[in-house]
Amino acid sequence: MPGVGKKSATRMAYFILAQDRRFAGTLADEIGGLHDRIRPCSVCGNYTDGELCEVCADARRDRAAICVVEHPQDVAVLEASGEYRGTYHVLGGVIAPIDGVGPEQLNIASLEGRVAKEGTSELIIATNPTVDGDATALYIARLFAGRAVTISRLALGLPVGGDLEYADRLTIARSLRGRVPLE
Amino acid sequence: MPGVGKKSATRMAYFILAQDRRFAGTLADEIGGLHDRIRPCSVCGNYTDGELCEVCADARRDRAAICVVEHPQDVAVLEASGEYRGTYHVLGGVIAPIDGVGPEQLNIASLEGRVAKEGTSELIIATNPTVDGDATALYIARLFAGRAVTISRLALGLPVGGDLEYADRLTIARSLRGRVPLE
Repeated sequence: MPGVGKKSATRMAYFILAQDRRFAGTLADEIGGLHDRIRPCSVCGNYTDGELCEVCADARRDRAAICVVEHPQDVAVLEASGEYRGTYHVLGGVIAPIDGVGPEQLNIASLEGRVAKEGTSELIIATNPTVDGDATALYIARLFAGRAVTISRLALGLPVGGDLEYADRLTIARSLRGRVPLE
Repeated sequence: MPGVGKKSATRMAYFILAQDRRFAGTLADEIGGLHDRIRPCSVCGNYTDGELCEVCADARRDRAAICVVEHPQDVAVLEASGEYRGTYHVLGGVIAPIDGVGPEQLNIASLEGRVAKEGTSELIIATNPTVDGDATALYIARLFAGRAVTISRLALGLPVGGDLEYADRLTIARSLRGRVPLE
């Protein structure tokens, strides 16, 4: 499991053994039932314990914009920024031919359905700024080319509060290329 | 000195003692003469051992663009990206009222002179994305407002190759606000 090595695992095992027998039982039930209680939102694919996720169920969200992310945890990250008022669409990964993941393995068909049905005016592609994330962004951009929907991608550049000296070359290059006009 | 703690300093001292006496003499001369050999470029303020720095002396550089940075080391960082073909201007710091640094303590007057004389068409402000760096960028932008020069700032956003999960809230917010259209 991520972040759990041999030592941490041993410590957890000792901790569980030191507790009541019922503790272990409850924990086992919780873990065993996780897939029954938490399922993908029927609209966007984000995790939810209901039919719709919190964002899709919220009537105040702007339905004209869909932010396309790789994983459910990315929704939480973007929500924490407090900057975005639209909805999301979780792809469930990125196109990665080497790992045998093509567009048909991702929630791309359902995204096309949503854009057609909801009259979406903007798609913000927030896949990670990696080779696969970029390729996936481009694939989606081409898929929707010619339709009445604006397609954009999260800005690449210097992290806020950072220092030029600590940024890598590629990031510096992108921050120069993507420079923004000052009023 | 940056990056040199008590332990490193002791190790260096032992190393110098273990060498020839002449080694210590040469090192002392090198350090003592640093300020005589290296001085600010008379045009841009970058460090140089001549009259002009390497960039200002290079006839192939694009004189229409000036990239404004805080320190000489930022020039090296931007040069390493290989993305920029214009010239630079080193401010020598940022406006920081708390530290008693105002615009008159920085190389801003000489920047005005250059823009007027060289017929600069673009100023790219590459001060660090910090509070003081932002304030300085804004000050310069206002100073040149109304003149025939485009003023831009390095893009803020996700680092290239990074992961949404590891970005801080402010950076996520800026990368959303600064999202760029995909073809």
